Amino acid sequence: MFDLISLKNSLQNVEGFYFDGVNVGLRDDKEQGDVAFIRSDTPCEVSAVFTTNRFRAAPIKHFLNYKKGFKSDFLLINAKNANAMTGKRGVKDIEEILSKIPIKVTNPLMSSTGVIGVPLDKEKIISAFDKFDFDARDAKKTARSIMTTDSFEKEIAFRVELSDGSFFNIAAIAKGAGMINPAMATMLCFIITDANIPKEDMDELLKEAVDESFNNISVDGDTSTNDSVMLFANHKKSAYDKNAFSFALKEITKELSMMILKDGEGSNKVVAFEIKGAKSKEDAKKASKALSNSLLVKTALFGEDPNWGRIASTIGASGIECDEEKLKIFYDELLIYSKDYPTLDPKRELEATKIMKKDSFKIVCDLSIGSASHVSYGCDLSYEYVKINADYRT
Amino acid sequence: MFDLISLKNSLQNVEGFYFDGVNVGLRDDKEQGDVAFIRSDTPCEVSAVFTTNRFRAAPIKHFLNYKKGFKSDFLLINAKNANAMTGKRGVKDIEEILSKIPIKVTNPLMSSTGVIGVPLDKEKIISAFDKFDFDARDAKKTARSIMTTDSFEKEIAFRVELSDGSFFNIAAIAKGAGMINPAMATMLCFIITDANIPKEDMDELLKEAVDESFNNISVDGDTSTNDSVMLFANHKKSAYDKNAFSFALKEITKELSMMILKDGEGSNKVVAFEIKGAKSKEDAKKASKALSNSLLVKTALFGEDPNWGRIASTIGASGIECDEEKLKIFYDELLIYSKDYPTLDPKRELEATKIMKKDSFKIVCDLSIGSASHVSYGCDLSYEYVKINADYRT
Repeated sequence: MFDLISLKNSLQNVEGFYFDGVNVGLRDDKEQGDVAFIRSDTPCEVSAVFTTNRFRAAPIKHFLNYKKGFKSDFLLINAKNANAMTGKRGVKDIEEILSKIPIKVTNPLMSSTGVIGVPLDKEKIISAFDKFDFDARDAKKTARSIMTTDSFEKEIAFRVELSDGSFFNIAAIAKGAGMINPAMATMLCFIITDANIPKEDMDELLKEAVDESFNNISVDGDTSTNDSVMLFANHKKSAYDKNAFSFALKEITKELSMMILKDGEGSNKVVAFEIKGAKSKEDAKKASKALSNSLLVKTALFGEDPNWGRIASTIGASGIECDEEKLKIFYDELLIYSKDYPTLDPKRELEATKIMKKDSFKIVCDLSIGSASHVSYGCDLSYEYVKINADYRT
Repeated sequence: MFDLISLKNSLQNVEGFYFDGVNVGLRDDKEQGDVAFIRSDTPCEVSAVFTTNRFRAAPIKHFLNYKKGFKSDFLLINAKNANAMTGKRGVKDIEEILSKIPIKVTNPLMSSTGVIGVPLDKEKIISAFDKFDFDARDAKKTARSIMTTDSFEKEIAFRVELSDGSFFNIAAIAKGAGMINPAMATMLCFIITDANIPKEDMDELLKEAVDESFNNISVDGDTSTNDSVMLFANHKKSAYDKNAFSFALKEITKELSMMILKDGEGSNKVVAFEIKGAKSKEDAKKASKALSNSLLVKTALFGEDPNWGRIASTIGASGIECDEEKLKIFYDELLIYSKDYPTLDPKRELEATKIMKKDSFKIVCDLSIGSASHVSYGCDLSYEYVKINADYRT
């Protein structure tokens, strides 16, 4: 038994962590930071899940150069430049930048997001070290500094109270709004905790939580070179419970992934694509991810057109086992297709259009040929998405 | 040795075929037909390649109900309604409609394109039989009658002259502008020939030609329920040569697939994505199709932004074997990325932008780790695509 208590001010709640964000001119808007740090006053255990993209960015290569089980107390983050496809120089640049940190640090790390294929502006980034308040605890400033096309900062925190009265805290910030894809999103997510969690639990629970959250959302089906989720634990508290931690971590990653989807470039609504009655879990996943990635489905969502034909066609094209005679499609609770024909009368269509006007709803496809199910989350495709991505250099 | 001679007036050139298109009110614009036929005055051998979508439309089921090796002399085609996801009724409706053809026909066929999940308006379609001139030979009217979101009719014809002075004709019409995808497009293509081609060559050569053309283009990565390519041969001429026929057929399907791509919904340019130096043909195909389907690549094409980082990232995300140190990316002949860093100087970027302003160009990615290669074709993603697909009920 445990209580999960939602907290304001995200990162501030976790003991022993400090963080700040400043503008050094990577970003034009001087009101918003572009370089940030998160540090702990004692070295942390670190777990991470990285992009499946073969061309991993330099910060990920640099992370993986450390020996397995290394501890770290410092993470530097920059926006506007991904430091990806920058070859050996990319890693050297990181080493040089991190060597200039003016306080004592252990195994410092770096994380980057922005344009691919341009060397880091080392001087500007190093100039942040004069501007940082290394004892600051301003989560909002930090969260805003790591944004790219995001329209709002993404932060969250929980206190977990165990039945014996002890408690621990877990908090996170994230960025991401585009290139969000079922095999992990272009997103950075930094989670910190003061729980007394063993390293093996960190690895196991982080992987599980990422699979159920960031790996289940899609804005545009692209997987970036920089995707990273990191979990830092400084063990300041003696409290820990595996189930409670797992629950809190899943809540955090799910909430953040929903924030990313809501902030999906040019997106107006979040849709859950549930496949049930599938022959296998693999089939259910394949079909629900095909739906969340289909341009024709996404544009129909934008047009608020209850065009279930596109849903059916996408399932049929996904290569899974399915049967036209057994398929049922629902918008929320409304049955909109089954073999008992015709199902699309004007009244139903009107009801369906109402459902589609909501900020979020679900499309449920019951294949009725098995018992496996899966839910993926997606969003609509608007003019705005095209505008953002035609004009923005990622 | 043979000569391939490009002909005007497409279908008219093939002996023994008749075709017409009329408007029966399925489409609002009365100037454009919505029901068409193509018939031969002698029964034809028929080969076909159909969609890989599991939910095949009723006309495909109806076709497949005929015994293998059947001959046919009549094809009826309607626009605005796909007769897909219409269950057993869909096939019955076809049988009823075709039974009303007022002339003597052998194993008549039907083909449909349009909205999914709505029963055919049998009365309207049957009313076409009073309006058709069954001895007409108006290819343009026929080609225009099968269009959906197409902005122009797609037709082509060749005369093939063999070295002995004999010749045969081959001609085709097609429709398609959206849902065009690497595993066949939402497109209909009807090819007719008077060549004296054996049935086994028809099957073999049609499959080959479709693989190299329609299966290599992508507008939006969706595969429809109705995709069909049919080849009708009435053997009116005694002339035939396998190589010559294969060459002509490939020209026809390639040209038509390029027309479909140029007419891609809201698309402004056609881009060839060539992967070379890959470890395997499979890898080369996978990466080039990933490029032609990537939203981020497609929006960068629309924005005419020489953002090779998105190209690299998409290749890396495609799951193929590749090496950042060995990759080279070219826009036409212009080297824009290699490990010798930095390659993106302002002068090169300006040159690249010029290339991207062209109606068509190629992006070549040399993986330099093997000898396999593949080319896929794609187009940009514009505001117009979103508009068409948000508003149009497919």
